[in-house]
Amino acid sequence: MAIELYWGSGSPFAWRVMLTLAVKGLDYESKLLEFSKGENKSPEYLKLNPRGKVPTLKDGDFVNYESLAIMSYLERKYPEPPLFGNSPEETGLIWRFLTECESYLVSAGDKIVRPIFFGKGLDKLDEIQQAAQTIRQELKTLEEHLAHATWLVGAQVSAADIAVFPMIQLILRAASKEAAQPFNLQWFPLASLYPNLARWVERIEALPNYQRTYPPHWRA
Amino acid sequence: MAIELYWGSGSPFAWRVMLTLAVKGLDYESKLLEFSKGENKSPEYLKLNPRGKVPTLKDGDFVNYESLAIMSYLERKYPEPPLFGNSPEETGLIWRFLTECESYLVSAGDKIVRPIFFGKGLDKLDEIQQAAQTIRQELKTLEEHLAHATWLVGAQVSAADIAVFPMIQLILRAASKEAAQPFNLQWFPLASLYPNLARWVERIEALPNYQRTYPPHWRA
Repeated sequence: MAIELYWGSGSPFAWRVMLTLAVKGLDYESKLLEFSKGENKSPEYLKLNPRGKVPTLKDGDFVNYESLAIMSYLERKYPEPPLFGNSPEETGLIWRFLTECESYLVSAGDKIVRPIFFGKGLDKLDEIQQAAQTIRQELKTLEEHLAHATWLVGAQVSAADIAVFPMIQLILRAASKEAAQPFNLQWFPLASLYPNLARWVERIEALPNYQRTYPPHWRA
Repeated sequence: MAIELYWGSGSPFAWRVMLTLAVKGLDYESKLLEFSKGENKSPEYLKLNPRGKVPTLKDGDFVNYESLAIMSYLERKYPEPPLFGNSPEETGLIWRFLTECESYLVSAGDKIVRPIFFGKGLDKLDEIQQAAQTIRQELKTLEEHLAHATWLVGAQVSAADIAVFPMIQLILRAASKEAAQPFNLQWFPLASLYPNLARWVERIEALPNYQRTYPPHWRA
């Protein structure tokens, strides 16, 4: 039975799982949900994922949600190529990048990306500037790390790269919007401000099957 | 060379690692940091953990921080008994509980536990009530799950139990404080409101070496 992936265009969390499937060379049936039509809150979908979020993965009878949880499942079920490290030390560092991404980038991103995309909460200036500063600090830390490394951890692409990358893309997309201009975010353009990070982004974009993972509505 | 654990009394994140070490029967050298003396911001400590938080684990030459990252490292280095599942499905579900804990319990807890403990931000009534409601919802979900399960995932204690437990303890401690009374949190007492969860708490408290992990300043 094919793997089924429920996802939404532009969700960085769904993008992580698509990249995982791409790197592992796993085929899947795409179930694209339209948030604007409330498809993620339909009774059928809530049976699979009571939180009504994406991604959700169904593999035979097994259903799971939360991006990092799905990635962990896929790693154990389809171990090649390994995405969670080749040693205890690599595993530990990969999870450090993953949990730091959740605690800092995702959490600061929430406070600023949504207001920019949806125009709500743009008046919370202090909160937005504080979140923007957190993101600059995280970008700087990644930039310094990538001065001496091709991938975040180890000699090949890992779950760390795959999970951080969609958040970086989302943040850059937000920074390019007109609503972001008054905030002087200084996240963008990546190539001049964070050149190592820019080259790392290009490396991920060159992964096989990358194109299939790109959010369709971002192409428009 | 002994494992060294840098921790702070009452940090739920440090507590997770102490429970992991306890369940795996690993001995370690305790490095208790006093936050009130700024020991977590000392130059020596910032070399180990530039974020100046706890826990940090040093095992020989390898240093790592972020609780879930340390737990993942310990699992791979010292696999017995396994705490991250005996099958891909168990691994996936354990990580679902872990990431849900971070996204919902930890993040709502931040908005309410700190104000209660430190008296700052208690005027943000809407935010506190919203966080309190999120926590009630998460407690309810755990309560329903534990109606049919001894442990959160699988037939024995796992990383899911170990990581969620200290957050529950922290939340209950906050709820018992005088500053919490005006909010009518309805988290407490656990035994009458969430009896399955209360029995699960007792199961964890009965784990071998549990007593060594209990925050010393909570005994006072």
